[in-house]
Amino acid sequence: MNIITISREFGSGGRELGKRLAEILDYDYYDREIITEIAKRHNVDEDYVEHTLNNHVWQTYTLSFHHSFMSPIYINAPDVNLLREQRLVIEEIANNKKNCIIVGRNADVLLHDKNPLNLFICADMDAKIKRCQERATGDEKSFTYKQFKKMIKRIDKNRARTRYLIADGEWGNRNSYHLIINTTGWDIEQLSIALAEFVKRWFAEQNEK
Amino acid sequence: MNIITISREFGSGGRELGKRLAEILDYDYYDREIITEIAKRHNVDEDYVEHTLNNHVWQTYTLSFHHSFMSPIYINAPDVNLLREQRLVIEEIANNKKNCIIVGRNADVLLHDKNPLNLFICADMDAKIKRCQERATGDEKSFTYKQFKKMIKRIDKNRARTRYLIADGEWGNRNSYHLIINTTGWDIEQLSIALAEFVKRWFAEQNEK
Repeated sequence: MNIITISREFGSGGRELGKRLAEILDYDYYDREIITEIAKRHNVDEDYVEHTLNNHVWQTYTLSFHHSFMSPIYINAPDVNLLREQRLVIEEIANNKKNCIIVGRNADVLLHDKNPLNLFICADMDAKIKRCQERATGDEKSFTYKQFKKMIKRIDKNRARTRYLIADGEWGNRNSYHLIINTTGWDIEQLSIALAEFVKRWFAEQNEK
Repeated sequence: MNIITISREFGSGGRELGKRLAEILDYDYYDREIITEIAKRHNVDEDYVEHTLNNHVWQTYTLSFHHSFMSPIYINAPDVNLLREQRLVIEEIANNKKNCIIVGRNADVLLHDKNPLNLFICADMDAKIKRCQERATGDEKSFTYKQFKKMIKRIDKNRARTRYLIADGEWGNRNSYHLIINTTGWDIEQLSIALAEFVKRWFAEQNEK
């Protein structure tokens, strides 16, 4: 069974890339499906699950004690329950024994023992904002460049923090992934085709061992 | 004209990857050749050039001034001359108008205006030390794991610092490259083939624009 995890900067096109890659490779694809499953199990609204998982209520206290500083990070109890449920759902997906791609949700860390191929997708800020503008709905339609930039930074900061909760490796750092791809200048469809070839060769070699 | 630059962690296999990629793509390949050219022009020994460029004499002073700290970095004059010569040689290579791969020497920064494809090659520490052990000559043959680790860290620190001299983007950071590849678990020959396909598609798309 081959598992690909995709971590990504907001607006980098990581989700579209994952979807296209899954189509080309004929892999199962998981992204929003995980939220749906958690919502069903907890009998709560999908939007609530998504919002809660993407916007943790972080409380940071800086304590001074004998001239040394400690900065513990607290996370609200409901968040912890949803994070736990998310982990269980992702583990179940892996136990399906079917080739799959999982976007986001720290699946790279959670499934470490299954030897997934871990990709990180990024892009230049201008490219990310352009993508956000193109797919904007509701209030976001009137967002300025600056507002999009602020939103992207906030979301990515939360992603980095969530990873920090469960793993040592830094979010977006080269040491935490097999491949980091900057999508700026790529047509995502073309990139998917190029990446599919790359991925096939990787798994061919790993499964030979 | 397509230019590929390869920046790499010491021991990651970046040089071998570059060489194989150049063979597959039929590109010119530059690495040690740059050192040879600088040595010829300055009428000095190749080893002297290499040692000087790889081991800058850095002098860091930490100054305290009204409770604020400043840490300027100084570099010796002979180093600056060689660094300048290196820049000129790299610019001449780019002006040859032939497809090429340049390994190291901050060619990604120096040739920024030529729109090169910038790759960064890394690997896990264990894999890097294993590679160093396999190709060790002279004194290095009796190096311990710890000694190799120290050497790798020292060399990479110098590479990061040299980049810091001439560019804003951070060495090894995802924002500075198009693609970051961790070679751990790859056979470099297989990786070269996978990467060649990727590269071809990238340039096909860029040259279409």
